[in-house]
Amino acid sequence: MPLPRVLICSKIVWAHDDVQRLLGDIAEIVWVDSPDRKNFLAEFGPGGKYENTVGIYRENESSKIIGTFDKELIDGLPSSVRWIAHNGAGYDPVDVHACKAKGIYLSNTPGAVDDATATTALYLLISTMRQYSVSERSLRELKWKPQGLNARAHDVTGKTLAILGLGGIGTRLAVLAHAFPMRIIYHSRHKNPNAPSFCEYFENVEEMLAQTDVLSVHVPLREDTVGFVGEKMIRALKPGAIIINTARGKVIDEEAMIRALEDGHLAAAGLDVFPNEPEVNPRLLDFPQVTLLPHMGTENQDTQKEMEVRALTNLKDFLTTGKGKDLVIEFKQVSGLNGLENKMKQKL
Amino acid sequence: MPLPRVLICSKIVWAHDDVQRLLGDIAEIVWVDSPDRKNFLAEFGPGGKYENTVGIYRENESSKIIGTFDKELIDGLPSSVRWIAHNGAGYDPVDVHACKAKGIYLSNTPGAVDDATATTALYLLISTMRQYSVSERSLRELKWKPQGLNARAHDVTGKTLAILGLGGIGTRLAVLAHAFPMRIIYHSRHKNPNAPSFCEYFENVEEMLAQTDVLSVHVPLREDTVGFVGEKMIRALKPGAIIINTARGKVIDEEAMIRALEDGHLAAAGLDVFPNEPEVNPRLLDFPQVTLLPHMGTENQDTQKEMEVRALTNLKDFLTTGKGKDLVIEFKQVSGLNGLENKMKQKL
Repeated sequence: MPLPRVLICSKIVWAHDDVQRLLGDIAEIVWVDSPDRKNFLAEFGPGGKYENTVGIYRENESSKIIGTFDKELIDGLPSSVRWIAHNGAGYDPVDVHACKAKGIYLSNTPGAVDDATATTALYLLISTMRQYSVSERSLRELKWKPQGLNARAHDVTGKTLAILGLGGIGTRLAVLAHAFPMRIIYHSRHKNPNAPSFCEYFENVEEMLAQTDVLSVHVPLREDTVGFVGEKMIRALKPGAIIINTARGKVIDEEAMIRALEDGHLAAAGLDVFPNEPEVNPRLLDFPQVTLLPHMGTENQDTQKEMEVRALTNLKDFLTTGKGKDLVIEFKQVSGLNGLENKMKQKL
Repeated sequence: MPLPRVLICSKIVWAHDDVQRLLGDIAEIVWVDSPDRKNFLAEFGPGGKYENTVGIYRENESSKIIGTFDKELIDGLPSSVRWIAHNGAGYDPVDVHACKAKGIYLSNTPGAVDDATATTALYLLISTMRQYSVSERSLRELKWKPQGLNARAHDVTGKTLAILGLGGIGTRLAVLAHAFPMRIIYHSRHKNPNAPSFCEYFENVEEMLAQTDVLSVHVPLREDTVGFVGEKMIRALKPGAIIINTARGKVIDEEAMIRALEDGHLAAAGLDVFPNEPEVNPRLLDFPQVTLLPHMGTENQDTQKEMEVRALTNLKDFLTTGKGKDLVIEFKQVSGLNGLENKMKQKL
C-alpha cells in the first residue's frame, strides 16, 4: 500500500531535518513547485504531482504564489485532502467554513507562538509607556534626548494592563506583566477557567476600559471581529491610555484610533500589525509617540522552528492516529463535532 | 534659634509640593540662583545667600551651571555643610573622597531608580535579542521587515542572562527576566546574601561569561571600574553574545566593544549610557543591530518624582534625627565609620 501523500506548500526554513524525522517514514513528501494558482489546483488532478494528497502543510508565505486558501482554492481541492496544517496562530488566510463544508480539518500552531508574540506585546508596552521609540530616533538624529519627554513617560510597575482576549498569548503576556507587577484585568467572551489567579475578569468591557492604562488586543480576525476595537471602545478607555496590537490590524478601527491619537485621548499606540500589510498608513508615522514594528510577533529562529515542528507534528499525528492536536476553534465549537468526525473517519 | 538652612541646588520638577511638606517646617529653604560656579561658592561666605547652609539637594542637571561637585567645589564649601543629598543612583559627578575628607555625608537614591532602570535594561534585552530597533527603522523607511532578520533574532525565554553587579538594579532585572524564565547567573565582588534563590553566583567572572547569552552591566563608575568590561572580558563572552549597559558608559571599554561588534563576536549591544554623554560615538550608529537610548534609565515622571522625594527625605531625616538613609557605600565601608559619625556628630 502506498504511503499517504503530504504536500509541503511553503518553504521549510528551520525544521528541514524535522520534515524527514516526523514524516519520512509515514508519508510520501511532495514539495510544492507550482508557478501559480491555476497550476497548483491542476496538479491535484489525475496524474498530477499532487494527486491523492492527504495532508497539506502551509503558511502565509505560500500566498505569494498561489494566493490565500480562500473558498475557491479550498473548493478546488480533491476529496483526498483531509487535513491542512497551517503554520501560524492566526488562520484568517484560510477559509475555515469552506474547509468544514468539505470535511477538511484545519489546525494552527497556537502554543508555539504564545511566548514570542507576548514578548513582542511586552516590548511595545514598555516602549510606549517609556517613550523609547521617539527617544532612539532623537539620539540617532544626534539630538540626544527629546526635551520634556519624562512628562509623557510613565513607569510600567503598578499600572493597569487590560487584556482583550485571554487566550494563550494574552495569558502569557499576563504572566510577564505580572512580574513588575502590573494589575492585570481582562475581558473575553467567557471567563477563562485557566486564567492565572491574579487576572481579574470583567464581563462588561466598558467597565474594564475605564480602568485601563494599557489595552493589549488579542482577538483573532474573523468576519465578526473586523473593527471590533472601534470608536465606542476606544472612547471608553481612560483618557491617556495606550493601545497595543499584536493580533491583526483589522481588529482595530484604524481611523478611530488615529482620531484618538490626534486629539490626545490615546497617549500612544504600539502596533506590530496593520490592516493592509505590508502597507502602513503613513499617518501613523507622523505620531512621535507610537512604536511600529513590521509584524515581528514570531520573527525569530527559535519560535519559527518551533512553529514549523508543531505544524508538521499535527500532520504526523493525523496520519498515525486519525487525530491531530491544535484543531482550530471552529471545529471544537461545532455541537455536531462527533458527527463531523465520524463523517471524516468514514472517508479514511 | 533659626531653622537650619537647606539649599535646593537643582530644579525640582515633580515634587514641588513635597519640598514644603518634607522640609517646610524644619528648614529654611533657599533656592539656588547663581549664574556660575564662582558666584555659587562666593554666596556661601559671610552675608551670602547660602551662608550657614547645612544640607544641599543636588542632581546632575545642576552641573550645567556650577559644574560637577568635584574636589574644588567640595573643598570650597563651608564647614556648616553636613549633608549632600544627591538625586540619582550613580554619584560619580560628586567627589565622595573630598566629601569624606571634609566630613560631609553623601546620600544617593538607590531604591528609587531600581525599577525604572531595570525596566530599561529589559527593554534593551528584548530589543536586541529580537532585533526590533532595526525592524522599526525598516518599517519607518517604508521597507516593511528587513530580509533574513529572523536568522539573527532569538527568543528571550530559556536563554542565559548574566548580571554583572547584583545590587538593587541587577536584582530587579533578575526578577523581571525570571518571569520568562531566563536562566540568571551573576558575578559580584561578593556573593549577594539577598540574591533571589534562582540567581546562580559565579566567583569566576570568565567562567560566567562563557555561558552568557546576554550580559547586563550594573557596575557603578569609580576610578577602578573605568573600562572594567574590557577586551579580556568581552572576548570571554560566548560568541554571539549581547551586551546591555544601563550603568555608565565608561564602565565598558567602548573601543573593545566596537571591535567585537565589527568582527561579529558580539551579536548586538543595547546601550542607554555612553562615555561622553550627550555625545555618542558615531561609529555605533553604523551597526544596524544595536539599540541606542539617550540615557532614559529613569526618565519618566513617576520615577523622577520618587527620586526627588527620596533625596529630600534623606535631607529631612538628617535634619530631624542626625542620620539619613541611603548613605553611599564609601561611607558604609569605612571600618572607622563610627569614628566618622562621632566626628560628624560633634560638629552638629
